[in-house]
Order: sequence, then C-alpha cells, then structure tokens
Amino acid sequence: MSRESVTVLGLGQMGSALAAAFLAAGHPTTVWNRTPAKADDLVADGARRAGTVADAVAASELVVVCVLDYGVVRELLEPLAGGLAGRTLVNVTSGSPEQAREMARWAAGQGARYLDGGIMTTPPGVGDTASMFLYSGSTEALEAHRATLAVLGDPIDLGEDPGIASLYDAGLLGMMWSVFGGWLHATALVGADGVAAGAFAPVALRWLSTVGLFVERYAGQIDAGRYPGDDATIDVQLATVDHLLHAGALRGVDGRLPELHRELMAKAVADGHGGDSYARLIEAFRPTR
Amino acid sequence: MSRESVTVLGLGQMGSALAAAFLAAGHPTTVWNRTPAKADDLVADGARRAGTVADAVAASELVVVCVLDYGVVRELLEPLAGGLAGRTLVNVTSGSPEQAREMARWAAGQGARYLDGGIMTTPPGVGDTASMFLYSGSTEALEAHRATLAVLGDPIDLGEDPGIASLYDAGLLGMMWSVFGGWLHATALVGADGVAAGAFAPVALRWLSTVGLFVERYAGQIDAGRYPGDDATIDVQLATVDHLLHAGALRGVDGRLPELHRELMAKAVADGHGGDSYARLIEAFRPTR
Repeated sequence: MSRESVTVLGLGQMGSALAAAFLAAGHPTTVWNRTPAKADDLVADGARRAGTVADAVAASELVVVCVLDYGVVRELLEPLAGGLAGRTLVNVTSGSPEQAREMARWAAGQGARYLDGGIMTTPPGVGDTASMFLYSGSTEALEAHRATLAVLGDPIDLGEDPGIASLYDAGLLGMMWSVFGGWLHATALVGADGVAAGAFAPVALRWLSTVGLFVERYAGQIDAGRYPGDDATIDVQLATVDHLLHAGALRGVDGRLPELHRELMAKAVADGHGGDSYARLIEAFRPTR
Repeated sequence: MSRESVTVLGLGQMGSALAAAFLAAGHPTTVWNRTPAKADDLVADGARRAGTVADAVAASELVVVCVLDYGVVRELLEPLAGGLAGRTLVNVTSGSPEQAREMARWAAGQGARYLDGGIMTTPPGVGDTASMFLYSGSTEALEAHRATLAVLGDPIDLGEDPGIASLYDAGLLGMMWSVFGGWLHATALVGADGVAAGAFAPVALRWLSTVGLFVERYAGQIDAGRYPGDDATIDVQLATVDHLLHAGALRGVDGRLPELHRELMAKAVADGHGGDSYARLIEAFRPTR
C-alpha cells in the first residue's frame, strides 16, 4: 500500500520529530530547513532534502510547517506566489489565535486549505497515539489527511475556527502550570515534614483523577449557569484553605498560590455565593461585561 | 461471619455517612451525637444509639471521631478518665498536623492507640473503594482494623507520624484548588471565543493525565535534586506563558493565576535555571534556609 507523501518545513527539535515520525510510518517525506545540514540525519533515514521552499512545497500536497513564529511562516511562504494552490497547509508553529486566523485568510487567498495545529507533547512524545494533536480550520482537510496526521499523535478536531487550536493550546498549558504549581506547593509542604517527593507523588496522582471527576461535573454546571453546592460549598472550602495557609506559614512554604485561591473564594463568598459549588468561580476569571 | 463492632462519635454529614457505610457492611454500629435526633435514620437502619459518650466508647474497641474541630474532640473525650484504655481512636476530624500530634500524645497517655485520618472525598463518596482515606499514627492499629476501615474507602497508610495525614490532606486540597483554578482560567479563555465548558472538558481531562506523567517524572528529579531540561526547559515555558497572558488580556480574562506562574518562572530564569525542567520551581515554594 502506497502512503501519501508529505513535506515538512522547519527542522528544529519538533519539526525533526514530525519528519522522523512520517518517515518511520513509511510516508515519502520531503524536508527543508534554512540550515540544510539539520536534515542530514533524516536524509540518512530516507528523507528527500529539498533545495528551496518552493521545491519542498511542490513535492507534496500535504505541507507541515513548524518554524519559530508566524513571521517566519509568512517570510517562507509569501514568495511562492501561486505555488500553494491546491496544497493543504498544516501550520503547527506556535502563535496566537489571531495570527492563526489571519494566516488562514491569507492561505485561502492562495487557494490552499489551512489547518492550524497545537502539539500537546514534547518532541519525544511525537509518534505516540496518546499524544494530542489539536487541529482547527479546514475540517475537510483534516478528514482528507487524518490517517497521515494520525502518525504524529491522536488528531483532535476542534472545528472550523482556525484560532481555536492555538487558544486551547495556551489554555491547556496554563492548566499544566497550575497543576505543577499546586503539586509543587504540596510537595514542599509535606517535604518540610520529611516526606519525599517520590512518596507523595502516587497519592497526588491518584488525587488528580478524583479532581478530574469534579471537573467533569463542574463543566456541566458552568454551561447550565447553575452551581448547586451539593458536594462541597465554597464556604466549606474557604474554611479549609486556612488550614493550608496556616500549615504552610508555620513551615515557611511560599503561600502566594493558595493565597490567590483564597482571594477568589473570599470574593465569591462576599458576593453571596458561599453556598455554591466551586464551579461558580468561573465568574472570577470570565471577562466582566 | 461476625463483623467487628464500631462506634462513631459525631453525626454531621460526614459522620453520618461513615456510620451508614459501617452499617451497610454489616458492622454492629453504635452512634452518638450531641443532638440525639441526628441518629434517627441510622437507628432505623439498625444502629444502636448511645446515651452518653462514655457508653458509646464502651461499646466498641474501634472508635471513630468526626466532629467540628479538635477542641470538640478534647471536650468529649477528656471526661472519660480511664475509659479510653485499650481503645483504638480513629480521629477524622479536620485539623492541623500539630493538633494531630498533640492528640496522639494525649491518647497514648490514656492507653489508647491513635490513628489520625484525612478523608479525601465528600460524604456521597464514602463507601466507594476509589475514595482515599489517609491514615497516619499507629500503623499497628491500622493493620488490626484495616478490613473494617476499608468499608469506608481505600485506607492509605502514611506511616507513624500522626501529623502526616492532615498535612497530606491540606496539600492535596491546595492541589485541587490549583487544578480547578487552572481549568477555570482555561475554560474562561476558550469560552470567550465561544467554546462551551462541556466541549473543552474532555480535552482538559485527557491533558490532565498527560500532565500526570510529568508529575511522576519530576518527583524523581526533586528527590535527586537534579533537573535536566531534556523535555521542556523553563526558558521555553517562559516564552510560551506570554502567549497565554496576551490571549487572556485581549479577551479580558483575569490573569492573576498565569501571572503568578510567570513570576515563578521568571525568577528561576533570573537565578540561572532557565535550562532546567519545571521541577526546579520546587525551590520557589520550599522554605528558605
């Protein structure tokens, strides 16, 4: 069975990992990088090195772009004139939703289909079906190339708005830093009384799954705009956060993170929502109208 | 097969759930509450109502205490004089590690075995083996009564220091608020562009498991005191957090949470740790020596 050919523009750590995954899955792979030597290992593994961006884009209908930023994307693609017509551009370069939307408009003007991507893993995680690859933009293009893109990781279809993949990407990274922060704070807290990080982690990880069950339930409450405090109210949580702040202060653990959570809870209580579930705190984050 | 009898002191929402779980599992259960009527439903289901704390404690070797705070625990138990000798006291009342340690010393003076507990679920989750019940103090008592306590949820043995269960409890709740905060922030961010919380949640939950894999790896790094930035460096994360702050600011989403994360990252970079993994940020939380 012959596999679809693919072009990868940009061979930094991530771009190289993408090209390597396509190659490993048997896709004829054309690569281009500003510094051509970066392609040496891939060429040794069977990739074709293109001399110019135009040559690289001409080689495959499916073109994956992974460079430093959107400025570089434009700089590489704008000189191609009609060369993008009929191509599918999959741009996994990091940027803002606004940049993605502008790029989609530009690509449409060139007669190309545009898919913006967010890669939710590090280069070693490329090729693992557990890794999420977020896509938004031309869902038609995603369906047409799903089997090829699935070689990189699990393709998640986020719909027609090309800015959404990048917005999810940013939001999910923010979530990650919050999980890390909360876990590091807790690790420092128990560590102050002699508990090793490795002893605490299994309990913390198991707890993370429990918290996930609340997230699932709270998402429904947010969409319904109703926050019944039938499991645990903000009042109860506010009373408990003081145990945490007190235990941390006694041990000299930095308290800025739990203090911020306390502030959000106290505001909700002051606004008369103390009997509601924690999901009500969405209002602390939402834009005020 | 005859099951061990158990006494529950305190029939608030949580205490009632504990007593109900013991009853449902066929344990002869004696209950006491300051307001006796709170026991009515349990008595209808087969519980024995004790008229006094002394009577309740005399009824079972295993005594579970779940009241408002440690002050109430002392107030109830101190008048018993020798009544606690030979008993196993399982105190799941919320309090600080320091209070738990003091209570353990006091119980030892009374000839009782002491186990301090942290219940990592809400009352409806009692009786579910997925729920974690953290215990520390007399591991001998935990082993002797493990089968009975397992009726409430999965008993997790945290060792001989009676303060540790309560310290874990506080730390894990802090983690929960951080997960909630990060998820709510992200939900508000994608919500600003029209994504429903219920559409975002499945991706967020899947991402949470991915982040868990990092937590596991980072715990080892913290114990080793070595933070190789081989997956993603703090430098890279600091560059990315600005995308998040920018996207949030454009949409009017409250940025205090990601700004705090940015501050922690920027400090680590300023201290010369930009090439390290995120786990290095444990130093931002640890007590300064």
